Order: sequence, then structure tokens, then C-alpha cells
Amino acid sequence: MPVAGSLPRTAVVMNFRLRRDKLLRALERENFDAFLVTHQANVHYLCGFTGSAGALLVAERGCVFFTDGRYAQQVREEVKAARLIVSSGPLLAAVAAGVGNAVGRASRGPVNLGFESDHMSVAARDVLKGLLPRRTRLHGASGTVEKLRAVKDPQEIECLRHAAQVGASLLDSALAAIRPGIPETSIAAELEYAARHAGAQGMSFDTIVAAGSRSALPHGRASDQPIPRRGFVVLDFGVILRSYCSDLTRTVHLGRPGRDMRAVYEAVREAQLAAIGAVRAGAKTSLVDQAARRSLGRVGLARFFTHSTGHGVGLEVHEQPRLARNAGGCLEAGMVITIEPGVYLPGKGGVRIEDMVLVTASGGEVLTTAPKELIQL
Amino acid sequence: MPVAGSLPRTAVVMNFRLRRDKLLRALERENFDAFLVTHQANVHYLCGFTGSAGALLVAERGCVFFTDGRYAQQVREEVKAARLIVSSGPLLAAVAAGVGNAVGRASRGPVNLGFESDHMSVAARDVLKGLLPRRTRLHGASGTVEKLRAVKDPQEIECLRHAAQVGASLLDSALAAIRPGIPETSIAAELEYAARHAGAQGMSFDTIVAAGSRSALPHGRASDQPIPRRGFVVLDFGVILRSYCSDLTRTVHLGRPGRDMRAVYEAVREAQLAAIGAVRAGAKTSLVDQAARRSLGRVGLARFFTHSTGHGVGLEVHEQPRLARNAGGCLEAGMVITIEPGVYLPGKGGVRIEDMVLVTASGGEVLTTAPKELIQL
Repeated sequence: MPVAGSLPRTAVVMNFRLRRDKLLRALERENFDAFLVTHQANVHYLCGFTGSAGALLVAERGCVFFTDGRYAQQVREEVKAARLIVSSGPLLAAVAAGVGNAVGRASRGPVNLGFESDHMSVAARDVLKGLLPRRTRLHGASGTVEKLRAVKDPQEIECLRHAAQVGASLLDSALAAIRPGIPETSIAAELEYAARHAGAQGMSFDTIVAAGSRSALPHGRASDQPIPRRGFVVLDFGVILRSYCSDLTRTVHLGRPGRDMRAVYEAVREAQLAAIGAVRAGAKTSLVDQAARRSLGRVGLARFFTHSTGHGVGLEVHEQPRLARNAGGCLEAGMVITIEPGVYLPGKGGVRIEDMVLVTASGGEVLTTAPKELIQL
Repeated sequence: MPVAGSLPRTAVVMNFRLRRDKLLRALERENFDAFLVTHQANVHYLCGFTGSAGALLVAERGCVFFTDGRYAQQVREEVKAARLIVSSGPLLAAVAAGVGNAVGRASRGPVNLGFESDHMSVAARDVLKGLLPRRTRLHGASGTVEKLRAVKDPQEIECLRHAAQVGASLLDSALAAIRPGIPETSIAAELEYAARHAGAQGMSFDTIVAAGSRSALPHGRASDQPIPRRGFVVLDFGVILRSYCSDLTRTVHLGRPGRDMRAVYEAVREAQLAAIGAVRAGAKTSLVDQAARRSLGRVGLARFFTHSTGHGVGLEVHEQPRLARNAGGCLEAGMVITIEPGVYLPGKGGVRIEDMVLVTASGGEVLTTAPKELIQL
């Protein structure tokens, strides 16, 4: 069966050199001789490797990529513009030897090696420290590549726009499957089946299908609970296409909703629109969150909104920036974020509505092409 | 539709208190006042929490569980025999305050807090250190809970046996879908659809469907490449049932295999049987690996076996023990491991055969109920 809805295979070529140049500029004031990237999404972003075990050593004079034998063939196809080291032993030992080769010869003083302190475990740092030449100094750096990744380049925006559209196109498959008595997992089954046939490499996260009183669980992964005859059903899912994630939530109602539940739905919808209305380059992320919270506060529902308003999305489904009460920073043009307020009434049910939004100079462009009027099944 | 093949909802009750008692005994010589568990699979193992953001503080006098508002309702249902703290701020801040309360009052000297050094990032440790009372001393411990988890209790063996059976029962769905010209992702679609309808909470890892020359990629996630008319197809997949993972690989051939490819298949099959034959409580893990490698060596194929022979499987698809050339330690009764040698000929194709095996006093009980004669499609 042909693959529907996928991009032509050659359509998107990422500019890894440009990204690495940006990283080197971001690191200039750090005075590192080299920077070791170990978080797989960051490695992928900087050199194209899609496997699960690789490390990239970035330095002005060039990059070295390390992996193990399982990826020996794959790296030759994927990894661009880096020297390749396929290690038969532990990866960190190969990295330590590589650090010596890459930066050790040129200088006689201490060698300053930056590493990703958000992603390297205390144990791994200790092992690496023990393997490195004595004159190497390790310096933790936090969120360096993530900060670059928060602002998408045009190729990434193309991928994310496409993923958001394909994700939204799958909603009908899920709605068609919803019937009282069948387990939530069966709805996830139909959705994920349609996703695969639309070319998805996989789902962005464990599909959430939360019906009836379970809709009050913000993270209600599809369970074997049967769909009840009445109540809300929250569907929260995403697809991975060309390595980029989509993320979408819609809430529908089984049977005719009472006036109170209809009011809850409308309150969430208004809060979501209010937050989208606050999106533009330069806006404080905390103010976008506040827009949703204030909107819910006007109808006395703010205290039932128990998570943050949104997050960046890209190679990972949760990335920078965070849109939360206590978050710092401002939106920048080219960021792709979710806007997803929710209201959760324990024992009764919950509503969440989520779109992906591209931040532009003048506002926010909603990438998720799905209606959000309350659907009654 | 009723859920086929799932356990009765009340069949498996985990004994979390017993596990925590075992942990406390394992920690006795460490002289910690409390031990902070932050790796989610370990948290799950010790208290039943299935979400993605929780921490468990384990001490002789009792346990405290920390999570955020998204899980406020879920933890009341899931988490057993621990005091619950639902934090509105950062989790580590709540943990730091909890450490003060849990261990601070009783003693006046330094408070020794153990943490999981394999799982806490350098950045998180630094943040935690800054938040804790000054007299707290942090001590990294490596693999403590993982070591307990390597030996499964009877309830876990029941779950794993069931997951392995359900996983194996899905193979036919995948085989029925294989036809030249359709993309690998379509085969993954059929497999995952069947898995969901068999009650799976999800897949253990990204489904591998690697056909033709791609079968030489040990980690060839299903791609949009069409299935060729001839060659091997490697299928490697697992389901999650009751939170426990299965893991299974079979390799089939499209068209009639040549004598050389048939010989490769038989060599891998013999190596897999040789390694299974070496499994018993007390056997060195490195010798099980060696059994597979020697078997392949007899036909000159050992150098094409580029990964380790197997790994433990349980709440995570990769856990202790490792069965590798350089691995230490011995098998123990109650461990559940994979045995999965492979041969990968770049540009030509590859073969891998994998079963789940329960280690017993007298040998290995294969839990994977699928044939491994070469299937020709």
C-alpha cells in the first residue's frame, strides 16, 4: 500500500553544519576546547543520527561522532560532516580516547571539555572523569543545544507543519471508533493503525484515551476500562514523521452534556483561544500561561487547571520553551509550541484542548487543523 | 470489543512492602538515613506509580512519595503504603523539603541521603544539593534497585510469561501483512493494531521491521522503504501488558533463500540454541554470550555478530543482567532474559532470533512460544 501523506523522501535536507556553527557561537564565551553532546535528540539535531546510542564531540576544528557496532552501517548513511568512530567497547571509553586525539595534541595546558549536565548522569560523569587524560577539566553546561532547538529553522517548521496536519487528519479515525463498552485501548488501536498507514514512524508518546471519570486524569493513558455511555472522552496523541513530533488534544462528549459540563467545555475553549491570542514573538511565556489561567478564573475554574499551558515541540514532544506560571523567558519567532489548558473535576470528568502554534512576529499561527466546537457522539 | 488475552483485573497484586524491605536490607551497609529513588521504573517497582513524574523517599521509618498536580488523582489509586505529597512547584524542591521532615528531626548530626547516581543528572544533583538542608550529605549509589529488579518475584514472572505469550501470538498478524511493495511501516501497523486489540498498553520499543538489505541494520526501525521481492525480513517487537515488557525477534525470508543465506539462518539458530543451552542459575553471563559467539565462530560468522547476546527484561525492555563478552556476574533463578544472537552482512542482509528465557536452577525455560524454523514467504 502506498504511503499516504508523507513528504517526498528528498524534500527536507537539514543543514547540520549551520546548526553546529550556531552551537559553536553560543559556546564562544564558555571557552571550551570541545563540547560533548550526549542527549540523543541533541545529537540528532546536530548531525542527523537517529539511533539510540551516539555521542558527538563538537570543536572548532571539526566534529567526531561515536557509536557502537549496532549502528556501524547506519551511521555511514545518516551522519554528515563528522569523523566516525565505531567503538567495540563502552562508548565513554571511546569518547575519552577521542577527546585526547581531538583536543589534546594542540595545547599543553588544561583541556576544557564542556558536557550536557542536564543529560549526563552523576555516575556517567564520574566514569568519564576517570577515563579522561588528567589535564582535562569537565564543565557542565545546561540547555545549550535545547536553546538553539527551541527556535526552529525553515526545514523543521515544514516538518512540524506536516506532522501537525497528519496528526489532525487522524482524529476522525478515533472518533469513528468510540462506542460505549469497548476498551479505551481499542480506540488507541484504530488511531495508531491509521497513523502508521499515514506513514508515521511511531507515536510521539503513549496515546491518551481517557473516558468518563478517567477524563479527569490529565495523563490518562489508554486503559482496558470500557467507554461509558455518557461523559467526556479526552484524546491526546501525536505522530512522529521525519523524526518530528505532533501533539494534539480534543475532548468530545458521549451523550448530551448537561449545562454544567457544556459550560466547562466552553470555558476551556475560551481559555485556549485567550492563550493563543497572547502568542507573539517577544511575549513573556508566563503571560501566555496567565492568559489561559485568567480566562478560567473568570468562571471560577482556575484551580482545576493543574498543569502548565504548553511546551515547545520538535524532535522531542516536550522541549523548550515551557509556558508556565513560573517560567522565564519570552517567545521568539520560529518557536513551535502547544497551547493546552484543561479543567479536571475529580470523579466527574475533564476537558483539555490542545493545538500546535507557530510563533510569528505578529502573533501565533495555529498549525493544528481540527475543529474545536464541542462534538457530541 | 472485549479485551482478548489480558489478565483478569485483580489477578496480580504486587507486594511493594516486601520489595521496599529488600531494598532497605540491601542498603543496610550503606548507612544512609534515607534513599531517594528517582528513576521511574524503580519508583514503579517500589510503590506502583505508573506515571512519568514521581520520586520516592525510602527510609526505615516509612516512605514518602512526591509527584505534581497532573497525578494528584492517579497517585491516590496507585501508590501504596507511602505518604503522598502532591507538589505545586518543582519536584526537587518538594523532595528537599520532605527530606528535612523525614530525616531531619530525629538526628542532630549529618543526614546521609543516598540517591540513584545512574539516573540523576549532574544538573539535578547540583539543584538538589542547593535546596537541601546544609547538613545533608549526598551519596550516589549505582544499580541498587536494578539489582533487586533483575530477579523477578512470582507475580512478575506471571506477568512476563503472559506478555511473552501474547507477543508471540501476534507474529502471525505481521507475517500475514508482508508483501513486496508495501512499506515496512504498514507491517508495523498490522502488528501494533493486533497488539492493542490483545490488550497491550503499548509497544515495548519502536517496532523493528527491516527488510532486504535493511535487515543488516540491527536497529532498523520500520521505515517507509517498500518490502523487496526477495531477502530476509527481521521483525523485532514487544508489547507492554500490566506494565511488563515482552521482546521477540524472528527473521523470515521472502522467496526461496540461496544456500548461503539458508546457512546463515541455520548458524544463527544454532547459536541461539547453544546460548539457551548455557542458561542456568549460577552460569556466568559472559559464558552464555560466549556460547553463542563460539557457535557462530565455528562457521566463520562470529565477526558479523556485532552486539551482545541478551539482556534482562521486565518493567523496562532493557534491564539487568547484561549478557555480553565483557559482562560480569552470574545468572540467578528468577531472572528473565533475552537470548538474541544475530549475523549482519552489510549490503546483503541479516538474521536475528530472540526468545525470552526464565532462568531456573536447572536451566532456562523459554517463555516465547513461537517456532524458529526458517519461514519462507
